[in-house]
Amino acid sequence: MRAKKNNLIPWQVDSQEEFRKSVEKIANIIKGSESFVIAVHERPDPDAIGSALAISYGLSSLGKNALVLSVDGVPDTCEYLPGADKIVKGVGDSRFDVGIVCDAGNLGRIGGAAAAFENVKNIVIIDHHPGEVNGNDSRKAFLLVVPQAAATAEIVAYLLKDQMQVEITRDIARQLMAAIVGDTGALRFANVTSVTLETAAMLTSLGASPAEAASEIYENRSIANVKLLGAALTAISSDLGGKLVWSRITLQDFERCGGTDSDTDSIVNQLVAVKGAQVAVLFREIEKNKVRVSLRSKGSAEVNGIAAKFGGGGHAAAAGCTIEAPLPEAEMLLLSEVRAWMES
Amino acid sequence: MRAKKNNLIPWQVDSQEEFRKSVEKIANIIKGSESFVIAVHERPDPDAIGSALAISYGLSSLGKNALVLSVDGVPDTCEYLPGADKIVKGVGDSRFDVGIVCDAGNLGRIGGAAAAFENVKNIVIIDHHPGEVNGNDSRKAFLLVVPQAAATAEIVAYLLKDQMQVEITRDIARQLMAAIVGDTGALRFANVTSVTLETAAMLTSLGASPAEAASEIYENRSIANVKLLGAALTAISSDLGGKLVWSRITLQDFERCGGTDSDTDSIVNQLVAVKGAQVAVLFREIEKNKVRVSLRSKGSAEVNGIAAKFGGGGHAAAAGCTIEAPLPEAEMLLLSEVRAWMES
Repeated sequence: MRAKKNNLIPWQVDSQEEFRKSVEKIANIIKGSESFVIAVHERPDPDAIGSALAISYGLSSLGKNALVLSVDGVPDTCEYLPGADKIVKGVGDSRFDVGIVCDAGNLGRIGGAAAAFENVKNIVIIDHHPGEVNGNDSRKAFLLVVPQAAATAEIVAYLLKDQMQVEITRDIARQLMAAIVGDTGALRFANVTSVTLETAAMLTSLGASPAEAASEIYENRSIANVKLLGAALTAISSDLGGKLVWSRITLQDFERCGGTDSDTDSIVNQLVAVKGAQVAVLFREIEKNKVRVSLRSKGSAEVNGIAAKFGGGGHAAAAGCTIEAPLPEAEMLLLSEVRAWMES
Repeated sequence: MRAKKNNLIPWQVDSQEEFRKSVEKIANIIKGSESFVIAVHERPDPDAIGSALAISYGLSSLGKNALVLSVDGVPDTCEYLPGADKIVKGVGDSRFDVGIVCDAGNLGRIGGAAAAFENVKNIVIIDHHPGEVNGNDSRKAFLLVVPQAAATAEIVAYLLKDQMQVEITRDIARQLMAAIVGDTGALRFANVTSVTLETAAMLTSLGASPAEAASEIYENRSIANVKLLGAALTAISSDLGGKLVWSRITLQDFERCGGTDSDTDSIVNQLVAVKGAQVAVLFREIEKNKVRVSLRSKGSAEVNGIAAKFGGGGHAAAAGCTIEAPLPEAEMLLLSEVRAWMES
């Protein structure tokens, strides 16, 4: 419901002028080139795939050749997207005018795809991860990096629509919507800003749907995944008046449910969603004496400090580590650290 | 990213002119009156409470007296909202110029609160539920009913901001955001339109946060609720190549987990989120020979037909019924109906 002038930069960037220059430079490089390879980071997520596909469709509409390169292919969650079946895992000896790194800050993050960049005339990096831009790359790259954006797709929407006057077709809208929904927990994480929502509104008015993207990305749990979630929720415990919540998945659970540790990725998020929980911990018995631990915090608690004590790491709100010990011992060791630290 | 002219009606209403007249009429009634009672439906949800609070704050800023009346009080999910502690369960003998029914289509839906409307000069109904407006009410009411709106809060935002030039303060923005998040599954249900997202963007730019609302409304599960969810997910079964998914919560589960049936409300949604599921059914053993059944469908299947066969009802995508039989028998009866119908 807010009118917006053209050419207004939607994010609070350090310097409006510098930013405008970067965007114009990149728009000009794109306009003056013919062939593009768009590479995403290893193990790509919907933001990487959706943004890269949108760039390739946008460039195609301008009469350019554009190829999306993902060395690890396409995750299940993105198979529904227009163009997903055209994404390649390698480019052989093909040569390109421009290499675009999408949703990553440097060539190191795109793995084997970096080989396709050896002969390009220009490198463009479009990303929203803070601090990932790597000054050690010997080759000059043109940067469009906006840490304030919830998803790389926000930046791509701005570049294509507002700067290059590319028509956002329904296909492109759906690609960008998947990207935004994927990096914002379907518009519910704290990274969502009014720019994110305005972009989502624009995409919806052009035929995309947050419900479609959320269903494809988040409602695709396997039965094994659901049963493992059930096992973890059944075994939930709490302490410190409910501020500390934890649970476990045992080797037996994995056998009974038929899943693997990759099916347990998001379970700890459901633990930290319990009323009153400040810190949540999920223990997974990977081998007889090897326990993988995920920690989450809500509010001010910083759990990466705890993880670091056990050789792990992560962010303040989400961290992990692996403990080489039997499950009961691993639980005791880690929880007593958490208790001591929460009570201090 | 779309500029919007003032006074443009954001929804596809039947007649722009009729709608504009209704809105102006209601704005004029409000401007010409001094005291207001704003009543919400029984067992109110965040859309009812958040919208009613926003109206009351908006009217107060215009120098009017406004009281929010909820005969069932305030749900836990809304306790964090500014003004929630001022909501009353009754008004005694107080008299008001205008009675506003918020998030319901008729006086029948507000239960005992209807008594407060007996002496009002005007009745205004602000709602987005289709087909709820009751022609049997003997008293004339002024209607602002928009079935295309995902939440009543969308309509309230339009009325206050665009029509009455009320300043949307951070408090009002948070109230309206809770309302929108509550009726859209945190912006991920199919009812979300570009208007919903534009409204959410505007509210976010004024200090509200979808993340805050989602956390307060959806991340407040009790430990009992989590354990019951765990029990249901552990007992999950599937058939017809995964298209039919179901589970159960037994009397034993309720005893062991310490929860009640009201803790199981949203569990069936997690069943229908399984990959490939078209229809999901949750059976709850309420008494020895009484089983409550919730049905959900994804895609084209209409489950209210099945529920109707057992004396229940609901919508195409969400329905329910109660079967007076032991749990295994109830499961057999209902699932054989679902199978026959899905295979036909």
